[in-house]
Amino acid sequence: MSLAVDLSSKWLLVSEPAPHVLHIELARNPVNAFSSEFWRAYGALFDRIASEGRDVRAAVLSSAIPKLFTAGIDLGDAAKITTGGLSGSGPSDGARSSLSLLRDIKDFQHAIGAPERCSFPVIVALHGLVLGLGVDIAAACDVRYAADSTQFSIKEVDIGLAADVGTLAYLPKITGNHSLVREFAYSTAMFSATDAKDMGLVSRVIPGGREEVIGAALKLAGVIAGKSPIAVSGTKRVLLHSRDHTVADNLEYTAAWNSAALQTQDIPETLAAAKGRRAAKFAPLRSDAKSKL
Amino acid sequence: MSLAVDLSSKWLLVSEPAPHVLHIELARNPVNAFSSEFWRAYGALFDRIASEGRDVRAAVLSSAIPKLFTAGIDLGDAAKITTGGLSGSGPSDGARSSLSLLRDIKDFQHAIGAPERCSFPVIVALHGLVLGLGVDIAAACDVRYAADSTQFSIKEVDIGLAADVGTLAYLPKITGNHSLVREFAYSTAMFSATDAKDMGLVSRVIPGGREEVIGAALKLAGVIAGKSPIAVSGTKRVLLHSRDHTVADNLEYTAAWNSAALQTQDIPETLAAAKGRRAAKFAPLRSDAKSKL
Amino acid sequence: MSLAVDLSSKWLLVSEPAPHVLHIELARNPVNAFSSEFWRAYGALFDRIASEGRDVRAAVLSSAIPKLFTAGIDLGDAAKITTGGLSGSGPSDGARSSLSLLRDIKDFQHAIGAPERCSFPVIVALHGLVLGLGVDIAAACDVRYAADSTQFSIKEVDIGLAADVGTLAYLPKITGNHSLVREFAYSTAMFSATDAKDMGLVSRVIPGGREEVIGAALKLAGVIAGKSPIAVSGTKRVLLHSRDHTVADNLEYTAAWNSAALQTQDIPETLAAAKGRRAAKFAPLRSDAKSKL
Amino acid sequence: MSLAVDLSSKWLLVSEPAPHVLHIELARNPVNAFSSEFWRAYGALFDRIASEGRDVRAAVLSSAIPKLFTAGIDLGDAAKITTGGLSGSGPSDGARSSLSLLRDIKDFQHAIGAPERCSFPVIVALHGLVLGLGVDIAAACDVRYAADSTQFSIKEVDIGLAADVGTLAYLPKITGNHSLVREFAYSTAMFSATDAKDMGLVSRVIPGGREEVIGAALKLAGVIAGKSPIAVSGTKRVLLHSRDHTVADNLEYTAAWNSAALQTQDIPETLAAAKGRRAAKFAPLRSDAKSKL
Amino acid sequence: MSLAVDLSSKWLLVSEPAPHVLHIELARNPVNAFSSEFWRAYGALFDRIASEGRDVRAAVLSSAIPKLFTAGIDLGDAAKITTGGLSGSGPSDGARSSLSLLRDIKDFQHAIGAPERCSFPVIVALHGLVLGLGVDIAAACDVRYAADSTQFSIKEVDIGLAADVGTLAYLPKITGNHSLVREFAYSTAMFSATDAKDMGLVSRVIPGGREEVIGAALKLAGVIAGKSPIAVSGTKRVLLHSRDHTVADNLEYTAAWNSAALQTQDIPETLAAAKGRRAAKFAPLRSDAKSKL
Amino acid sequence: MSLAVDLSSKWLLVSEPAPHVLHIELARNPVNAFSSEFWRAYGALFDRIASEGRDVRAAVLSSAIPKLFTAGIDLGDAAKITTGGLSGSGPSDGARSSLSLLRDIKDFQHAIGAPERCSFPVIVALHGLVLGLGVDIAAACDVRYAADSTQFSIKEVDIGLAADVGTLAYLPKITGNHSLVREFAYSTAMFSATDAKDMGLVSRVIPGGREEVIGAALKLAGVIAGKSPIAVSGTKRVLLHSRDHTVADNLEYTAAWNSAALQTQDIPETLAAAKGRRAAKFAPLRSDAKSKL
Repeated sequence: MSLAVDLSSKWLLVSEPAPHVLHIELARNPVNAFSSEFWRAYGALFDRIASEGRDVRAAVLSSAIPKLFTAGIDLGDAAKITTGGLSGSGPSDGARSSLSLLRDIKDFQHAIGAPERCSFPVIVALHGLVLGLGVDIAAACDVRYAADSTQFSIKEVDIGLAADVGTLAYLPKITGNHSLVREFAYSTAMFSATDAKDMGLVSRVIPGGREEVIGAALKLAGVIAGKSPIAVSGTKRVLLHSRDHTVADNLEYTAAWNSAALQTQDIPETLAAAKGRRAAKFAPLRSDAKSKL
Repeated sequence: MSLAVDLSSKWLLVSEPAPHVLHIELARNPVNAFSSEFWRAYGALFDRIASEGRDVRAAVLSSAIPKLFTAGIDLGDAAKITTGGLSGSGPSDGARSSLSLLRDIKDFQHAIGAPERCSFPVIVALHGLVLGLGVDIAAACDVRYAADSTQFSIKEVDIGLAADVGTLAYLPKITGNHSLVREFAYSTAMFSATDAKDMGLVSRVIPGGREEVIGAALKLAGVIAGKSPIAVSGTKRVLLHSRDHTVADNLEYTAAWNSAALQTQDIPETLAAAKGRRAAKFAPLRSDAKSKL
Repeated sequence: MSLAVDLSSKWLLVSEPAPHVLHIELARNPVNAFSSEFWRAYGALFDRIASEGRDVRAAVLSSAIPKLFTAGIDLGDAAKITTGGLSGSGPSDGARSSLSLLRDIKDFQHAIGAPERCSFPVIVALHGLVLGLGVDIAAACDVRYAADSTQFSIKEVDIGLAADVGTLAYLPKITGNHSLVREFAYSTAMFSATDAKDMGLVSRVIPGGREEVIGAALKLAGVIAGKSPIAVSGTKRVLLHSRDHTVADNLEYTAAWNSAALQTQDIPETLAAAKGRRAAKFAPLRSDAKSKL
Repeated sequence: MSLAVDLSSKWLLVSEPAPHVLHIELARNPVNAFSSEFWRAYGALFDRIASEGRDVRAAVLSSAIPKLFTAGIDLGDAAKITTGGLSGSGPSDGARSSLSLLRDIKDFQHAIGAPERCSFPVIVALHGLVLGLGVDIAAACDVRYAADSTQFSIKEVDIGLAADVGTLAYLPKITGNHSLVREFAYSTAMFSATDAKDMGLVSRVIPGGREEVIGAALKLAGVIAGKSPIAVSGTKRVLLHSRDHTVADNLEYTAAWNSAALQTQDIPETLAAAKGRRAAKFAPLRSDAKSKL
Repeated sequence: MSLAVDLSSKWLLVSEPAPHVLHIELARNPVNAFSSEFWRAYGALFDRIASEGRDVRAAVLSSAIPKLFTAGIDLGDAAKITTGGLSGSGPSDGARSSLSLLRDIKDFQHAIGAPERCSFPVIVALHGLVLGLGVDIAAACDVRYAADSTQFSIKEVDIGLAADVGTLAYLPKITGNHSLVREFAYSTAMFSATDAKDMGLVSRVIPGGREEVIGAALKLAGVIAGKSPIAVSGTKRVLLHSRDHTVADNLEYTAAWNSAALQTQDIPETLAAAKGRRAAKFAPLRSDAKSKL
Repeated sequence: MSLAVDLSSKWLLVSEPAPHVLHIELARNPVNAFSSEFWRAYGALFDRIASEGRDVRAAVLSSAIPKLFTAGIDLGDAAKITTGGLSGSGPSDGARSSLSLLRDIKDFQHAIGAPERCSFPVIVALHGLVLGLGVDIAAACDVRYAADSTQFSIKEVDIGLAADVGTLAYLPKITGNHSLVREFAYSTAMFSATDAKDMGLVSRVIPGGREEVIGAALKLAGVIAGKSPIAVSGTKRVLLHSRDHTVADNLEYTAAWNSAALQTQDIPETLAAAKGRRAAKFAPLRSDAKSKL
């Protein structure tokens, strides 16, 4: 029985293509435009999975729409922004308008950053157009794969604003060419999957289209799902910490973390499995994990 | 009438090749050697542009000398350094000599970092030799383009010192290969435009020479100059912050920033212009901006 | 007379192939597996060199075993870990077990980080298999060269743990593609020298095998050994600081550092040597340096 | 009509003793022992007030129990901790137990830190015993008042653990005597209101008991509630930022913040009111604020 | 001949009451209200002294007006703020207004922070009213003395804004009671010199009034002026660094700094003077220091 | 049998006045002047205790000399400093002299910081003169007690240098009055035990002299030694982390730490002992701890 029964919603399709692997698809026709309702649902989905303790060990995020990943923010929402925030008719006082916008921006950031709050890796499989918010979404995932025809644009400047939900916070840290990041962020120029690979934004360019890139991402997810969840989730936590701290701080944190994590049965189990040439079997991370998935 | 009339000086040529685009050329024969007088003038030029609020929206920095960008620091100055600082005959007390040098180094750093203090992006177009200080200068710009025959060297070790005005502070952050950065910094080996691209130091390698790379840089500057200055300058500010802060800190800062910046007419103007298939028109960032440029 | 006489030990061969250049070879048959005795000896060797003030100006680290660099941690040690730490039979109290592990992890981190505490650059020449701890070791060196047949794996997840002695602390900072780093860290997939170059982990891929890559590394070491040790060691110190601090903090630190370092005879010496077209001659960094090397 | 109607719950009494002022009382007989149910309710109450946008401008937190503020954590919960976390029977794997505890600790920290997430100041009025968790709770409030007979103890060491929900994170930052903080944290010694004042933990010692200290706190709350909510909430946000950032970072953040906040009608309103010798009248921070309170 | 001849201006009186000691007096009748012209002059005065390298070794800042130190910002300026920034009629676009305000705030912060940029300590002698900006000004000085009748108020909330030029950035770091800082910042309550001493804001409360507190401050300045300027200026630099960095970072920075500073003749001179029971004589910090002062 | 048998050395007396309590006395006649040999022995003693895992649970540091704690650095050493470092005749090159000094300063800092590297609290009992290095030493301890006649001076400026082994790094963080810290650091003025208490430097002023303050410190040490060593050492680690990190960072680190530390038998043991009204009994932190002490 598929998990989609209770996790899927009108714009977010969820399935379980392999044991412990979740597939999440963006499905808001025609162009996966993100209204505030959509991005709130997006964040809530990941947070629900994280808090319910389902035994997910890897997830793939992709678009269900053949021609693109997403065209970005719903421009109807963008228009509302200048008339005082998303949450109502809006106050007329300049400072109160700013506060109202601030709350919306922080909610928006929190929703798009949800994959970081999951204990398992999230692999995003990109194809077609990845515009504006699409780049923010991809940046907050762990691993990025792109079909060879993918076209990216850091589009926010074209609607008169600086990207504020992740692209500018993440890209200088997760890629290896500030010059290209700034060029694309200032100019909104389209860039190809190959440019993205050169810049260090994606792991690899997958020949083919939507199906091929999803296939490659699911294959990686399957490999990760076979590993010790203590080891994989610890690796994710330590890598996120490493991005934002000095080497010395990170080593100190990792030592504290591993001094507990090393007391796991997953280590003798992996060693025994390797010796016996069998697949290792691991308990879920949480004892309250639902039995299916 | 060209802006060069009042901004140009003996070693720095300034022109306005396109609306809101400034072109600054290094022109100290024969090799653009940077004496302290030259680097002080260099920093002062950018700071003057920034403080006067001219309506510049993008700038290109290049060399007016056909065979090179710069040979680096003027060795006459380097010689003076060991006899007690640039600012005079120098005290004989070791600690006072150090303090004198410290003031010179900080002035030097401040001058070379001037492009960061401009609200608009600065694109550097490199060709020929880019030695020593040339790398520091390029590192402090937003975007780097190199002609395919460009040759770089982090030359400082060859005169007995660690680079101290930017190269070592910026390169580990703005590129994607620490191993190469250290190799070139320790060995002073020449490296090519292609090496620079591989390392993540330049956006792209432009086939051809000085004219071609300047042409490409001006083209990018033209594109950027057509965008909302609120959006572009906000993007620059947020990217500079992002380089030096955690993701969480940067998102918090960006939210504060955008809660004000989103209250701009540039957003409805861009949306209206897109709808009407016309070019958007934006007010200058500052109401006291001079009418020409 | 070779320096190996007093520095070499059963698993660590040390020679002096060129003036001021040290060559350190890992030599624990059959697979350079790192027991705790081995990694303690490894750290102690570098710390001894650093503290004795020998006039080393560059070092090359490689494996003496033809088929690989290292298979990583000795699994006998890994097994001991789950029964209470390396330092004895281990206490049965969970918190005391954690504390015992914590001390071991911090000792381990300190040993693997030893190359950073040397005033000279350490170039690692990689070939064959570089598994698990091999990546941590390489990450803590200054420059990484790899033979074209090198195969890497961030292997720790396969024994049930998050890498905790350097790989996850360094890789997000010293390379240029977080997506690849995470992909390889979660999946333990083998990756090639070319992947490593694409990711920004190695300076260059050397055609050939063990001998060729060691040859290339020694050549670079020789170049560096000919430079001013004040300049090279200052560059190393400033680059390490730069990795973990903001641009502003690093410029401030560098200014303080150079205000002393510029008062060196190496600057007039390099200038005079360049003028006289002769090799510069530099004093050792420490007056108590042993005469041979 | 009192707001207690919908905000109060079995252990948390909420009233509105003055316009825009909320009074929250801890009321779990006999000793305000914090079970996990209680601290979850505590955090949820503040988060609900914050998210609903009620027009609260200051709050007072106190105990409804005559003889004490709180005896700290419910020891029934503490006992459960060693058998595997609060959220169930608990897994037997050491690492999974740690992860389960980690989630509980982070939830606990989040709940106790809730007053920081309110836009208005929270003043805690302390009397009687303030043990263990009582200090963590007080530390996360904005202002601390203590009746002269108050007795404090950083009690956690007496149940075998380091305080982990705020005391050790806050006290070194919000007080002025590390020596006293450590002495009390290591020894669990009782300390008086006067000691607390000497250490910098409380604003002032109020002669009298529970009623007097609540009276003084409500008086302060009343004064604050009469000020511009834009100014007060901005001050709180900037002070929280200041605690954790450098002076330079804080000035930069504050400038970004105030460049929006200064565009408020509260400034001309305060100036006009001062001129007209009348009380200023301010709009709520949020236009969706409920009309009552 | 007094230095006041060339440094004094209409609202800033400068004299040299003792060798190497500067006395700066705020003198804008009737209440030392700070218009933007006044605070720009204030910052420029300190920056001029710092950059000219006069041989100042300590300075005292006080008010020339008998009844107060300062009433704070000039309300005429505050009124202009809400109509678009200090620098002109102001743009009507919300984002451009914010940018204009941002520039003004940063200029304001830079001016008030000027005493930090001097190599010598600045002692502020406070008396009478110290309102609003007066607290920001005092916070940026090195040492604070207050006459016993001094009355303080963090007044900014009373004109509808969060203090943004120093008070909120400095106070949580330089004092020892966050509870009091927040209480006074939210409530704008007047507090006494004794409160200020209790909170850790001032060194000591001087019995008497304006003359007594200035006398005490000048006496301290005289003591400091007799010490090695290398030692005092190094101490200031290291203390400023310490405030904003970790212990480890500060020790590293201090070691770099002192490795140069210890090579000073001031050390043998102090030792010789102590031996010979005579006053030590020190060279100016800068060889280009003007002969007088 | 006293532990002094093997730990005491010529200038450092070590005894075990109570179970698990160590008493360390500075005993270099006539004035506890710290030569480099002395401070190296001081640091080595603490590091030896820490690394050997003796079951120490609290230590008291004091002076064995009736009239003072210490007169500070041995001026013979200070004199050597200006002629090229402690480690030899010294090189004549300015930069190499600086490097030599740098190594000495860092060794010095490391030695004085040794109490921080112990898992147990160190209480310093001060009396008589506490000059120069005495303040650095006290600052690196956990808790400071002073006899009422104690006299302090941050004396370094009087020999021409900025304090560089701890005073300036610690004092702004561990006390609550920057104004006083700077005043005393610039002026070298003597300050009393009461001043020290006002500033937040000492926990309390003990009426009486050397014996009384040692008695009070030993009493506190005895109390601490009766507590769970898991809880006390964890509290120390978390407090040291807290001093140098943000609240959010510290809470994250503490959660990781306690998720392991809570799995200790000390918690049920303390609860059972409290119930049974008996003293709790705890295992040593390390299973390899020597049986005596």
